[in-house]
Amino acid sequence: MNNSESQLSIFALGGINEIGKNMYIIQSSDDIVIIDCGSKFPDESLLGIDLIIQDISFLQEHKEKIRALIVTHGHEDHIGGIPYFLKQLNVPIYATNLTLGLIEIKLKEHGLLRETRLFLIDEDSTIRLGTIKTTFFRTSHSIPDCLGIAFHTPQGTIVHTGDFKFDLTPVDNHAPDIHKMAEIGQNGVLLLLSESTNAERPGSTPSERLVGDHIEDAFRHAPRKVFISTFASNVHRVQQIVNAALKTNRRLVLLGRSMVNVVSVAMDRGYLEIPDGMLMETNEVRTMNPEKVVILCTGSQGEPMAALSRLASSNFRQVEVLPEDTVIFAASPIPGNERSVSRIIDNLFQLGAKVIYGSGNVTGMHVSGHACQEELKLMLTLMKPKYFIPIHGEYRMLRHHSLLAESVGVRKDNIFILNNGDVVDIVDQEAIHTRSIDAGNIFVDGFGIGDVGNIILRDRKLLSEDGMLVIVITISKSGNKIITGPDTISRGFVYGPGAEELIKEVNQSVSQTIKNSKDRNQRVLKQNIKSSIEKLLYSRTKRSPMILPIIIDI
Amino acid sequence: MNNSESQLSIFALGGINEIGKNMYIIQSSDDIVIIDCGSKFPDESLLGIDLIIQDISFLQEHKEKIRALIVTHGHEDHIGGIPYFLKQLNVPIYATNLTLGLIEIKLKEHGLLRETRLFLIDEDSTIRLGTIKTTFFRTSHSIPDCLGIAFHTPQGTIVHTGDFKFDLTPVDNHAPDIHKMAEIGQNGVLLLLSESTNAERPGSTPSERLVGDHIEDAFRHAPRKVFISTFASNVHRVQQIVNAALKTNRRLVLLGRSMVNVVSVAMDRGYLEIPDGMLMETNEVRTMNPEKVVILCTGSQGEPMAALSRLASSNFRQVEVLPEDTVIFAASPIPGNERSVSRIIDNLFQLGAKVIYGSGNVTGMHVSGHACQEELKLMLTLMKPKYFIPIHGEYRMLRHHSLLAESVGVRKDNIFILNNGDVVDIVDQEAIHTRSIDAGNIFVDGFGIGDVGNIILRDRKLLSEDGMLVIVITISKSGNKIITGPDTISRGFVYGPGAEELIKEVNQSVSQTIKNSKDRNQRVLKQNIKSSIEKLLYSRTKRSPMILPIIIDI
Repeated sequence: MNNSESQLSIFALGGINEIGKNMYIIQSSDDIVIIDCGSKFPDESLLGIDLIIQDISFLQEHKEKIRALIVTHGHEDHIGGIPYFLKQLNVPIYATNLTLGLIEIKLKEHGLLRETRLFLIDEDSTIRLGTIKTTFFRTSHSIPDCLGIAFHTPQGTIVHTGDFKFDLTPVDNHAPDIHKMAEIGQNGVLLLLSESTNAERPGSTPSERLVGDHIEDAFRHAPRKVFISTFASNVHRVQQIVNAALKTNRRLVLLGRSMVNVVSVAMDRGYLEIPDGMLMETNEVRTMNPEKVVILCTGSQGEPMAALSRLASSNFRQVEVLPEDTVIFAASPIPGNERSVSRIIDNLFQLGAKVIYGSGNVTGMHVSGHACQEELKLMLTLMKPKYFIPIHGEYRMLRHHSLLAESVGVRKDNIFILNNGDVVDIVDQEAIHTRSIDAGNIFVDGFGIGDVGNIILRDRKLLSEDGMLVIVITISKSGNKIITGPDTISRGFVYGPGAEELIKEVNQSVSQTIKNSKDRNQRVLKQNIKSSIEKLLYSRTKRSPMILPIIIDI
Repeated sequence: MNNSESQLSIFALGGINEIGKNMYIIQSSDDIVIIDCGSKFPDESLLGIDLIIQDISFLQEHKEKIRALIVTHGHEDHIGGIPYFLKQLNVPIYATNLTLGLIEIKLKEHGLLRETRLFLIDEDSTIRLGTIKTTFFRTSHSIPDCLGIAFHTPQGTIVHTGDFKFDLTPVDNHAPDIHKMAEIGQNGVLLLLSESTNAERPGSTPSERLVGDHIEDAFRHAPRKVFISTFASNVHRVQQIVNAALKTNRRLVLLGRSMVNVVSVAMDRGYLEIPDGMLMETNEVRTMNPEKVVILCTGSQGEPMAALSRLASSNFRQVEVLPEDTVIFAASPIPGNERSVSRIIDNLFQLGAKVIYGSGNVTGMHVSGHACQEELKLMLTLMKPKYFIPIHGEYRMLRHHSLLAESVGVRKDNIFILNNGDVVDIVDQEAIHTRSIDAGNIFVDGFGIGDVGNIILRDRKLLSEDGMLVIVITISKSGNKIITGPDTISRGFVYGPGAEELIKEVNQSVSQTIKNSKDRNQRVLKQNIKSSIEKLLYSRTKRSPMILPIIIDI
């Protein structure tokens, strides 16, 4: 690595070739700034894993250079890793008012609030982080109070968009600051990092405002109670639900821990207005005329422990879904969640509810928070960057985004489709990618951070598919006499009457193997037992359980 | 159950409230006819399960009454259970030419071909099954040679649609026989069973023919090799791919076992025409000009072992995806498969391929094989049934279908939304649902049919989440002295340096527990060890591995 004073480096520790665990790093000489610290939910192949976070060993090695963690907005894939990060590195955090509120909830849960340095910024802030002057611009997204960031370094300006769309008729009337973006672009942008979530989708994302009318309409036509489920953090959506309830003379109940938490932070900090007396307690629902009630709940993604899932399986004491009630999914299922969402919809139909579900394009009950192709081109056009790095997306999205960049005039050679850890170094205004640093997945499982690795996951997978057999045998130290056993215990493999016969056969085969083994070395004996039993079981059952021979020398 | 001669009963052993493992039963007096015998793929919660089939204990109890298994078409959810069924009940099978061909592949694999009685039927057949005269009508679907069935019983006519759409410009020019359907309806239909897959979708499903033009267009514009993936059983789609290849001067390679199998059956039986010299071997690809090659392969649903997945991970010896190659997904992902399909798309993009993917509505490369709402209404209108049972769908689909039936004049009280096993009995033209029979899921795992139950699945789930610990200890018969151990072996739980410390603590705690236990009964000792170690591990790791204490008395 070149240590010249004008060294500028940009890379991601998460968020490239994935949706989730965003973390981007700008290093200008000896000043490191971190952008976002998200978490990611594991897919079903990562058995037992609770959460995925970034490998921050690079940052730990250079901790004296870290000036700040700047958080663009309050979504989980941008703030979810913060408590785990802070347990390893105590770094000052800069974020807007609502974002700080959501971070504080997490810090409280992890007992980290007191020791953390939190700094409030807004779109007009200017902060100096060593050699990097940092300014901000307002964007719109599916959560209020989002920022894009301009890093003015000695080498030039780096812009990071955060997550955004161009909602020109936003619910809170705070439109994205296109003039400021134009000005930044006019002054020259050396490199743009822009999000790619919707880069596959043509056109523009509709305004959040359009959802409000559809919700009001549905409330008006609902003959009895209305349940509506959306992301708790979509405060503008929540505001529109509040407004629709007001207009249709319904009172509001909040169900689900994250809904209650976010609404309370958003109200406290002035992002959400709910008139006095409109909110009511869950146990008041029974006393109300059903046509006067809206229940706003979590669980639109089919999360099994969330409010909607419990309502659908009649597993909620104080409220129930009854025939003629209306249930609205004000969110499209995220890829991977379709099956669990469908199961809930089926259950709700079986309870006799009218269910409004499916793609937001069809129901009008949801719009995306991310820019589609025309908006991505607008951002690229406003910024006119010399270099471009598409971020925040899986590979095909990055690829589409890079084609969009080319189409508005960015030179093909100046576009870098990276992996997490790939470093773009800029020296004398010229960017190159020649090196990479460690940037893998760290698994959080229970209290453990990073202690679950491939061996454990491989074992869990083996165990999950065909279960296991423990074979215990005690042998005289001389090695010639079996004292107890073989005894075989199985879990997740076979069970019931047919199993006994098979286990008997296993035990006989083990005895035979021991008798036949000339080598009395434990390791060899175990290996012999394993391979003979593996063969036996596969030929009898076509299954391959994990086999654990235990030999005790007495 | 009423045993009067005029008893007529209808029920499902699979296919209601699910997509998969279709099996419907018509019983007229002492004659039982079975329609279809499908299998279903397990979702990710059914760890290690290969396949799900029907519980046929009712049929085993009444096997002397079974006259036939009639198979409507050759898809897995209609034929996949046949080998397992035949191992339990040897029943004559009636099906059309192509369907028989696909069934025979399965019977060969299971060594059942010789002993099975197979009967060829077509749309003009009339078969007498005891008191039931059975006729057929031609339908269109995403596989050729599909039939709907009319059962003319002493009580009246029962119609089963099979899977269908109304493709009025079919690729093979065999349009659905609307006139015959109209005639059946005109003569009076007592009860209709109609499929519900697309009952949520408005409008009509486009003709398969439209796909052909899009494929030809893509072939023409592809600068180098073309890979195209679709369901092997969609013979009309395969024919259109062949035609497009012909028109664009490309030769064809087949990749994937099921593609080779189905194409060979379809050619043998006259459902597919491939000109001589057009097919080539995989190893010839290297010798060809890339713009003269089409590779037709399996794996459009992201199946990890199928051809496309292996191509995407460069795991195929004789063919590889190279920059500028084109890869076409001629199939929409089935819900639940989105993530694996996306992973493959990303890999293909990384290899430099142009990938045509996404919903068939957008790409034009896929149309559904199932009737949408307007077509379902057409079927209901043609048949004018007195009673209606929506089948072949999850609950929300059945519900939508029943609303469609109401909208074209079926009386609400005459519509039965059932569960598998719910019986509709018809006596004197009046239908009632008052009873149910057993109709659960039977799991196939390796060679085992039905031997994997809830206990095994629960254990696999436990093992998959947090792994397990085996604790072995030998104690003197008197119970007072520990002779060896405690020794702890863990799998899928903790690993590496931190783990040793924890295991030491576990062993100490086990020794302590044994010392403190007054009761020397093995069961009590094991329970004490289990509960103390559970608490210890949860407090240290927030994980709950399965704990297996093994105590050996010497």
